[in-house]
Amino acid sequence: MSNPKLLETFANPAPGRDYLIEHTHHEFTSLCPMTGHPDFAEITVRYVANRKCVELKSLKLYFHGFRNEGIFFEAATNKICDDLGRVLAPRSLVIVADWKARGGFTSRITATYKPGRRL
Amino acid sequence: MSNPKLLETFANPAPGRDYLIEHTHHEFTSLCPMTGHPDFAEITVRYVANRKCVELKSLKLYFHGFRNEGIFFEAATNKICDDLGRVLAPRSLVIVADWKARGGFTSRITATYKPGRRL
Amino acid sequence: MSNPKLLETFANPAPGRDYLIEHTHHEFTSLCPMTGHPDFAEITVRYVANRKCVELKSLKLYFHGFRNEGIFFEAATNKICDDLGRVLAPRSLVIVADWKARGGFTSRITATYKPGRRL
Amino acid sequence: MSNPKLLETFANPAPGRDYLIEHTHHEFTSLCPMTGHPDFAEITVRYVANRKCVELKSLKLYFHGFRNEGIFFEAATNKICDDLGRVLAPRSLVIVADWKARGGFTSRITATYKPGRRL
Amino acid sequence: MSNPKLLETFANPAPGRDYLIEHTHHEFTSLCPMTGHPDFAEITVRYVANRKCVELKSLKLYFHGFRNEGIFFEAATNKICDDLGRVLAPRSLVIVADWKARGGFTSRITATYKPGRRL
Amino acid sequence: MSNPKLLETFANPAPGRDYLIEHTHHEFTSLCPMTGHPDFAEITVRYVANRKCVELKSLKLYFHGFRNEGIFFEAATNKICDDLGRVLAPRSLVIVADWKARGGFTSRITATYKPGRRL
Amino acid sequence: MSNPKLLETFANPAPGRDYLIEHTHHEFTSLCPMTGHPDFAEITVRYVANRKCVELKSLKLYFHGFRNEGIFFEAATNKICDDLGRVLAPRSLVIVADWKARGGFTSRITATYKPGRRL
Amino acid sequence: MSNPKLLETFANPAPGRDYLIEHTHHEFTSLCPMTGHPDFAEITVRYVANRKCVELKSLKLYFHGFRNEGIFFEAATNKICDDLGRVLAPRSLVIVADWKARGGFTSRITATYKPGRRL
Amino acid sequence: MSNPKLLETFANPAPGRDYLIEHTHHEFTSLCPMTGHPDFAEITVRYVANRKCVELKSLKLYFHGFRNEGIFFEAATNKICDDLGRVLAPRSLVIVADWKARGGFTSRITATYKPGRRL
Amino acid sequence: MSNPKLLETFANPAPGRDYLIEHTHHEFTSLCPMTGHPDFAEITVRYVANRKCVELKSLKLYFHGFRNEGIFFEAATNKICDDLGRVLAPRSLVIVADWKARGGFTSRITATYKPGRRL
Repeated sequence: MSNPKLLETFANPAPGRDYLIEHTHHEFTSLCPMTGHPDFAEITVRYVANRKCVELKSLKLYFHGFRNEGIFFEAATNKICDDLGRVLAPRSLVIVADWKARGGFTSRITATYKPGRRL
Repeated sequence: MSNPKLLETFANPAPGRDYLIEHTHHEFTSLCPMTGHPDFAEITVRYVANRKCVELKSLKLYFHGFRNEGIFFEAATNKICDDLGRVLAPRSLVIVADWKARGGFTSRITATYKPGRRL
Repeated sequence: MSNPKLLETFANPAPGRDYLIEHTHHEFTSLCPMTGHPDFAEITVRYVANRKCVELKSLKLYFHGFRNEGIFFEAATNKICDDLGRVLAPRSLVIVADWKARGGFTSRITATYKPGRRL
Repeated sequence: MSNPKLLETFANPAPGRDYLIEHTHHEFTSLCPMTGHPDFAEITVRYVANRKCVELKSLKLYFHGFRNEGIFFEAATNKICDDLGRVLAPRSLVIVADWKARGGFTSRITATYKPGRRL
Repeated sequence: MSNPKLLETFANPAPGRDYLIEHTHHEFTSLCPMTGHPDFAEITVRYVANRKCVELKSLKLYFHGFRNEGIFFEAATNKICDDLGRVLAPRSLVIVADWKARGGFTSRITATYKPGRRL
Repeated sequence: MSNPKLLETFANPAPGRDYLIEHTHHEFTSLCPMTGHPDFAEITVRYVANRKCVELKSLKLYFHGFRNEGIFFEAATNKICDDLGRVLAPRSLVIVADWKARGGFTSRITATYKPGRRL
Repeated sequence: MSNPKLLETFANPAPGRDYLIEHTHHEFTSLCPMTGHPDFAEITVRYVANRKCVELKSLKLYFHGFRNEGIFFEAATNKICDDLGRVLAPRSLVIVADWKARGGFTSRITATYKPGRRL
Repeated sequence: MSNPKLLETFANPAPGRDYLIEHTHHEFTSLCPMTGHPDFAEITVRYVANRKCVELKSLKLYFHGFRNEGIFFEAATNKICDDLGRVLAPRSLVIVADWKARGGFTSRITATYKPGRRL
Repeated sequence: MSNPKLLETFANPAPGRDYLIEHTHHEFTSLCPMTGHPDFAEITVRYVANRKCVELKSLKLYFHGFRNEGIFFEAATNKICDDLGRVLAPRSLVIVADWKARGGFTSRITATYKPGRRL
Repeated sequence: MSNPKLLETFANPAPGRDYLIEHTHHEFTSLCPMTGHPDFAEITVRYVANRKCVELKSLKLYFHGFRNEGIFFEAATNKICDDLGRVLAPRSLVIVADWKARGGFTSRITATYKPGRRL
């Protein structure tokens, strides 16, 4: 199961500058909650760090936790946004999920984190 | 015949956040009302949900309803915009239809839903 | 010769909505007025219709009229903009002409129609 | 040597409209002033004409004048901007020069003409 | 080791104009500080010069200095931004670093120099 | 229903030469006989004519006949090969059908006509 | 676990013709037996059927069986070749597996089935 | 009208070597003899010269002669093969004509010249 | 320094079948022996195993050994061919090295191992 | 002027193996002998060395010698083949020259060196 406790952080090496960090994971896979068939996506995490940066290997392990989890596109994207928002408390954060072809459709879900909003 | 009653919805799993959902159907086909020849298009449904999200398989079946229907590019694009607007009552909605080569032309029609406007 | 009288229109099926129509012709050809050699271009007609939409087959025949006409890039693009502006009286209209390689150059001319301006 | 006197113009055929003209030369070559080795670039001339348009063949001959001239990327781009600015007196003008791979680098220089500025 | 003293400059040939200079290095490589494995990136230096332009060969030698240095993506990108900011004192400066695939991820770090800020 | 009687021919204009003719139809569509869902393919007809060439518009109408027919990939490809073999009696004939993504798969079926074989 | 008993077949609809069938699965994933990390591949099954064709949905389910199995590239490719060879007894069969980037490497394994060989 | 008398030749500069010459014309256009609509093609002339090479500008003018001629794909390709065969008497000659999209089809015709055959 | 003792092997899992294994390393880098500047290449190892397969991580470490070694393109390619030939004693082996742009050139060196030849 | 005396060689480091060397120069330019306008090409030198390999920097300087020389496509390709054949006395040698667009044409000339033939 996906587990935000797997996410590790390190101190932002340039906290005095608002610089943009983008990590794109090309190998995300989860299961369709209705059919059990695999879904595949590219997931981009785009953020301006405050005090903490996400450690890349831990982010990979966190994503691997979805491998055998049944979850809808919309719910997975929002969960990743919520989990990373809680752990990083970033200045800004956007999650873009590009879901591969399923039944003649491709889909993109884009969720923006709002600091301080009720999760 | 295309039938908006085929469209099914599910409850928006993150109603507290304005996030963008884009579904692109790569296999849309209808008929030219003048010649009866097939037309082909990629149709993107881009919206911010309010209370309801469109269920993907039902969207596919709704699109399949155009397969043997004679309809102009402009009319098909606007009908899809109207039908989805009525069913989803979204915060925002845009339909982009990319029609494939016909007589040396490609065409794109882009229609934006206006909440509350007279359909 | 190119002849705007070939352009036919049909009634805008969704006059209550400002939606964008783009037709790209991939097979435009005319002649260089100086050398008589053929020129080739992709021409995009991008407009928001008011009461009238241009019928696609008539647009093709209108473009075919340039096939043996000697005309400069700049003049051809502006003439198309003027002719379609007169016929459609659109809410907005842009013509983009991408001319293919000639002597190591490619060229793009972009002309915007101004409703009410003196042609 | 590059010579702006080679540049010829013709009267703008649509002076009542602000339309955009872009010419991209794919075969620009000059010499590195330090090593004497050839440099290669794609040069785009993007402008809104006032009274005069540049004649394409004369632009080609003007560019050919750089073939055996030793000149830095930054200087060549600015010289082209100055020369065309003087000759065309355009409403606006931008030169974009994309220099091909040299020592593992590609470079782009973008210079904007300011009407009335001291050259 | 990476050494900003390797960076050489020449006088801006067009100081009266704000023009954009972009150099993209396609062959940047450093080492992961945790595993010692090589990392690869494309680094773009985008700036508006004030009095000084960076000499391209010296920029290459400066980048070569990272070849056997263990450094995180975020730290390398910010260090390059700081070093070039100090040496060029530019009107503006952005560093974009595109890191190649590592464990199923690609990453992009974008840092903007602020004139006068404490480095 | 697909009907080989729609196929029309014209006399080979160069019967003294073995030359290759390839027509690729980019808009083939049929139905899955199990689910009723649409399938899409690109179909290439590659042949050396004997006395007869297939007329292109009639080939298009023949292909349109599959639009609402439930038929497996393998059966459709072989049927097209048989129908064209009977009508053209060609010196050689190959049908290549590239079926688009279905359930994470793409498929290609390649069938070669054997003159004189039992169909 | 991967299970060849999931593979279903149907009777070859054109047994009198040697025609080529190719199915490419774009979403194969298994686990590295050493690290437990996911591997991804495109797998092509290319064969000339004898009496039996493989049913596509059952092939998909068979491939899904590798999802949580630790297996080397070379072993997985050969196992698929052996399993399909046993089930189809084809006239010919080749498996091509394209494994995606892992540690800076991509890999392709190509195995050919030999009818009658000792498995 | 297309006229082989426009074709000019020059003496093969290396008659002692069998080397391959390929010229691809990207701007061929003719008319459909049935509808009068324009057709477009890329035509490759691939040959081993004997005593004569075709002069490129004359080849261009010969191709321009088809601009307003109604002719089928198959006939045009064979005519070009015959005309160049007669004029060049080459050691070998192949014409490849790639016809652009027409009614959802693209076509390629490939004709090989046979020295000494009855034209 | 590059060291063939780093190469590790595992037993061929399908020694009864001649199947092809291809590993492409996208991140090879060495130094030019004349200038000391970095060179970059993609190296493909293509072989039919006899008793031994090369372990991928050890191949990566072997390639990393060239990082700070001055060696010509031709010599590096042949050395890799010799080292892997000795370690694997394969049924066949080809090394293809694609060297990236240097001074306006790209280069490819292809070396084939001959079992039993004097190294 | 192009001068084969600029070509330098070094001893083949693996004379006991027939391996293939390919160098592609992406920046070849010469002049049209009829119009004086620049021509551009990619030139590939593909050979199996006997005792000598061509040194890459000297090959570049040799190619630069064509920069201001008026020479036909066919003649330039054959001259390069002759010059390299004389200097390298290779086991085999092919020159492939891809000439860029000129008047709507691209051209490729492929010449093969014959050891011992009269040049």
